[in-house]
Amino acid sequence: MALADVDTPALIIDLDVFEANMERMAKAVRAMGVVFRPHAKTHKSADIARAQMSRGAVGVCCQKVTEAEALVDSGITDILVTNEVVGQKKIERLVRLAKRSVLGVCVDNSGNVDSLNDCAAAHDVRLDTLVEINVGSGRCGVSPGPAAVALAKQVAGSTHLSFGGLQAYHGRAQHIRNFEERRLAIESAASQVRETTKQLSAEDIVCARVTGAGTGTWQFEGTSGIYTELQAGSYLFMDADYGHNEDGDDKWSHGFGHSLFVYSAVMSVPDPARVVVDAGLKSMAFDSGMPVVADDPSTEYGRPSDEHGNLQLSASSKRYTLGDKVRLIPGHCDPTVNLHDWYVGVRARHVEALWPVTARGAVF
Amino acid sequence: MALADVDTPALIIDLDVFEANMERMAKAVRAMGVVFRPHAKTHKSADIARAQMSRGAVGVCCQKVTEAEALVDSGITDILVTNEVVGQKKIERLVRLAKRSVLGVCVDNSGNVDSLNDCAAAHDVRLDTLVEINVGSGRCGVSPGPAAVALAKQVAGSTHLSFGGLQAYHGRAQHIRNFEERRLAIESAASQVRETTKQLSAEDIVCARVTGAGTGTWQFEGTSGIYTELQAGSYLFMDADYGHNEDGDDKWSHGFGHSLFVYSAVMSVPDPARVVVDAGLKSMAFDSGMPVVADDPSTEYGRPSDEHGNLQLSASSKRYTLGDKVRLIPGHCDPTVNLHDWYVGVRARHVEALWPVTARGAVF
Repeated sequence: MALADVDTPALIIDLDVFEANMERMAKAVRAMGVVFRPHAKTHKSADIARAQMSRGAVGVCCQKVTEAEALVDSGITDILVTNEVVGQKKIERLVRLAKRSVLGVCVDNSGNVDSLNDCAAAHDVRLDTLVEINVGSGRCGVSPGPAAVALAKQVAGSTHLSFGGLQAYHGRAQHIRNFEERRLAIESAASQVRETTKQLSAEDIVCARVTGAGTGTWQFEGTSGIYTELQAGSYLFMDADYGHNEDGDDKWSHGFGHSLFVYSAVMSVPDPARVVVDAGLKSMAFDSGMPVVADDPSTEYGRPSDEHGNLQLSASSKRYTLGDKVRLIPGHCDPTVNLHDWYVGVRARHVEALWPVTARGAVF
Repeated sequence: MALADVDTPALIIDLDVFEANMERMAKAVRAMGVVFRPHAKTHKSADIARAQMSRGAVGVCCQKVTEAEALVDSGITDILVTNEVVGQKKIERLVRLAKRSVLGVCVDNSGNVDSLNDCAAAHDVRLDTLVEINVGSGRCGVSPGPAAVALAKQVAGSTHLSFGGLQAYHGRAQHIRNFEERRLAIESAASQVRETTKQLSAEDIVCARVTGAGTGTWQFEGTSGIYTELQAGSYLFMDADYGHNEDGDDKWSHGFGHSLFVYSAVMSVPDPARVVVDAGLKSMAFDSGMPVVADDPSTEYGRPSDEHGNLQLSASSKRYTLGDKVRLIPGHCDPTVNLHDWYVGVRARHVEALWPVTARGAVF
């Protein structure tokens, strides 16, 4: 089928760019000598996880237990849940999942460590448990240093938990626009991790793994000498927003291309300088700004409503007629993917693959 | 099951408030002597459509063909697609659907009228076709007056289309904060409709139906004397955003209560004045601002990421421990509902109903 015949709005992948992004990251991470465990919260797809693993990824990260379940059900059996799992129902599902996959989980609370251990004991499972530290994101995580060491000790002393290392993801740093400021944010994160691992050593606790990093900063964690595992996920698709990050001399970030688009059709032409397309709030995420029109950046997408968006053409020489289709680069890919059931993989303007969004809507 | 045992994040409905909203609207619309055809793009649920129809609604509106298909498949067989349907694939599906339901569609383009007629002829179907006019929203629709009349003439002269009336929805007016300005916006819309129907009469074209209105303005269309059918949908749930509309003396809008919530659990307690909950960008829509914490408005939800949100407690005396659950009122209900697969209906803090979101993700 030709791309032009794909019904809209559809989530499409430019497979050439997508594969180049995967190769580029695989090569860079290999050169750094660190482990690569890309975040599947970006793509939620078993097919894509397999493509990453065939290029050297050891497994994937997930953010939710049901996301991990969906991927394990589809054959991806090495997963780190980079998040706290709270509440008896979720813990029960997590522990059951650990019986049929290599699974890790994060903690930042002493009572939660006990709950995990109790449930793991009840099911006779040993759970790989990482301590999450807050290295600047100000979201979850205990403070680096003594608080982290105390929690690691509790984990290590639990009958059915193994201390698996530190989760040290600096989410806020990913979108710092200035290259040098971004580098310094991770330098600070790495030094907090280093200090914590020293204190762990002093207590004879082995920290075998330090995991973190995202698409805005992975090169800094990867060359820090202290992070052992990188979790970047968005590099696959590249949010429009990442295009606003300033790059360094190495052009590491900007070397990745936009490979994910929402394909959308012109459904009303009220005015030569303004046309209406059929993708709005229910087809794309808008938390990181408006989508960018891929093949004509001087056309501006704006004023989204649930099922509509407007293309303003005043700055563009392009003119559209009813039924014309455009590729929109989402401001934020992760929540955009979560709105769709299928990826349509495209090469040379023809459909080559249809992949389900395996863990679409897996929010528990 | 007790509400407290519902796993999070979950889409919950307070059934008492929800039913009171339905009754209130049904009574008001009955008193106005107009037809009620609530918009199902809000709820996407066959169960809820049935509940509305059991209280006097004649059917529902949909925005997308696949949304209409999902509802027809579930037994809702009187649907107006309040939108243009463009492209051969979509038109084909629409026409096939018209064979098994009462179906209407909107047009704003002459070429599209021909495409609809050709397909309806090929399938030997007569399609009820309304002309959409732009009464101030600046989205789809032809201009009121001569342009609308010309298109209505074309429809009426088509072998397999019937001219079904005017679609005149003023989307922008819904969220005008000031009551009097909102009233004036609809007064203007109504006078544009009136002028258009006069011109239609002069051409001997009967305009049997004028349809439109939303939750911010329905009382004005309903008493305009020119609108015959109201489409309000959000009144069922009441977006947090609608709480910012100033009401008139009649208290019509503010009489509806918030009945839809995203139920979310505290999953990290980094600090007594800031806790992290498990609902973020993948569980709620943020285009109309942050959700409001239902039972403690002085607690502020902020800094959402894909799977997390922060509750800032500096202005609240409330303190949360791990696993505590809160009800969040979404800023915008329609795209929030579209993120979930199930509604959990709750009464007296116990689960009473589980309804699928029948047309979740139906974006085509």
